[in-house]
Amino acid sequence: MGEFELIDKYFKVATQRKDVDLGPGDDCALLSVPPETQLAVSTDTLVSGVHFLPDMDPVSLGYKALAVNLSDLAAMGAEPRWVSLALTLPAIDERWVAGFAEGFLELAEYYNVALVGGDMTRGPLSITVSVKGTVPAGRALLRSGAKAGDGIYVTGTLGDAALALSHLLGRRTLNENQLAAVLPRLEHPHPRILAGQALRGIAGAALDLSDGLASDLGHVLRASGVRALINLDKLPLSPVLHDAVSREEAWQLALAGGDDYELLFTVPEEHRGVLDTALAHSGVKFTRIGRILAGEPGIEWQDGELPVALALKGWDHFA
Amino acid sequence: MGEFELIDKYFKVATQRKDVDLGPGDDCALLSVPPETQLAVSTDTLVSGVHFLPDMDPVSLGYKALAVNLSDLAAMGAEPRWVSLALTLPAIDERWVAGFAEGFLELAEYYNVALVGGDMTRGPLSITVSVKGTVPAGRALLRSGAKAGDGIYVTGTLGDAALALSHLLGRRTLNENQLAAVLPRLEHPHPRILAGQALRGIAGAALDLSDGLASDLGHVLRASGVRALINLDKLPLSPVLHDAVSREEAWQLALAGGDDYELLFTVPEEHRGVLDTALAHSGVKFTRIGRILAGEPGIEWQDGELPVALALKGWDHFA
Repeated sequence: MGEFELIDKYFKVATQRKDVDLGPGDDCALLSVPPETQLAVSTDTLVSGVHFLPDMDPVSLGYKALAVNLSDLAAMGAEPRWVSLALTLPAIDERWVAGFAEGFLELAEYYNVALVGGDMTRGPLSITVSVKGTVPAGRALLRSGAKAGDGIYVTGTLGDAALALSHLLGRRTLNENQLAAVLPRLEHPHPRILAGQALRGIAGAALDLSDGLASDLGHVLRASGVRALINLDKLPLSPVLHDAVSREEAWQLALAGGDDYELLFTVPEEHRGVLDTALAHSGVKFTRIGRILAGEPGIEWQDGELPVALALKGWDHFA
Repeated sequence: MGEFELIDKYFKVATQRKDVDLGPGDDCALLSVPPETQLAVSTDTLVSGVHFLPDMDPVSLGYKALAVNLSDLAAMGAEPRWVSLALTLPAIDERWVAGFAEGFLELAEYYNVALVGGDMTRGPLSITVSVKGTVPAGRALLRSGAKAGDGIYVTGTLGDAALALSHLLGRRTLNENQLAAVLPRLEHPHPRILAGQALRGIAGAALDLSDGLASDLGHVLRASGVRALINLDKLPLSPVLHDAVSREEAWQLALAGGDDYELLFTVPEEHRGVLDTALAHSGVKFTRIGRILAGEPGIEWQDGELPVALALKGWDHFA
């Protein structure tokens, strides 16, 4: 079975979207962008052995490849619409392709995202996904909108995906129940699409946590020209993370482990009152973990009232 | 130097485009799509050792990675606007990155395409480019628009890039002058952007030739439900190709060699008269090489008045 047949068999799905004028199969897809919106575009590559383990279940990998991209749209408060997929495979393994397509398309269907094109080529396993969505003009959540006095918030819990990965890499051993609790956080992150949209007009700044809070918060601080105080005792940690590792290790995983795909956002005091109501519909828990300070970009860590010196490093793919 | 520093140093260029509301550096780029247009999107991956030789000059590679994607926009008659670049590199080689960025951005600047985002990751060398452009609503050139009686045309000459590649692969030896004439066709293809736009309202169907005419024309025939008669004696072959190989080898290279990145298009008889004028401004030569017939998708080859049986195979990345 060749490239075209594989794509036809596993990736060709009829879309219900009225904004897809021409789907895969021509030189380009043709899409209708609604008036009074901005197009939001994000592209991410996942490489075998770097972003995922080579033996990762293809269904989970297909799901995750799309999820991490949708997470970028969530962080802008955008509505997902379309996705392109470039898949590079060492050889034709039809079962693998079928599994990957199943996981990818399951999530695409859940968020009504149309697969509008892409490419399938031979080479070392890697996946590049490019998602496109829209946001009402002028209402996107940017990294540059944090101001001194804003509260700093995150959705969900932090560090669970990194805990699962450290088990898979043999760096520690979780028991069966612990692994069952955290493995889905690594393999099936939930892009916070509804939460992101709900935060439009409320959050000052937002981004999604992919490399770890310490590194990712740094992007917000540099883009906004501010610094941050983080209360380590306020970090939302799951019971499993609490049980499995020491307090200091939990901080390390939560702050520099990466792969959380939760939203980090800042909220000015005057919007604090509407935050509960706005996020209630998204079904996502959120926690205030610190606040934005005036001054040079940098993070101050505090445990209760005590300053803490932390030596953390975020994930740089070339580090 | 890390991922972020490399991107900042070599890929951060200010754009003059007013339709880029937010460039690289946030979770998504934000773009303004003009009213009354459709968004045209195409994604292509180039893998080292599959689509290009591992020792290819990075400046040429950067140029070509963008050129082959722009060629897809050209084939739709679209106006290029934005591009995302996902670059996977085995290691940091700053000179290589600088060269790649030079070639890529030189072409981006030429067509006023803004680099609005992407990704840089560690892994086996591969490049995924996703271009976005717009076309006036309802006026894109599709593969499905060919009708019996239409003339079949191609721009430029065919087979030169494949001739150059066969030399680089050691399958034949060109002299210095011959190589100098055809190597640019392999490394610096010219996306036929202006020609594609000029063909709107004139051509019935169009696509760009990437895998070889025999394979690519097949896409048009299947999408349109028609067949084709191709006059081999009318194929536009360069003097170098004529000199370097036999007539039959020239056909093989022109029809199944690939990498031409010329446009193939069909024109109904009633538009034949305006074709010369329309394409004059694009500065591109074009040749009538056959016509569309009614019937089952398939190609009939003819040399003068004589039918020819050809055994050709297009390029399938998994074949």
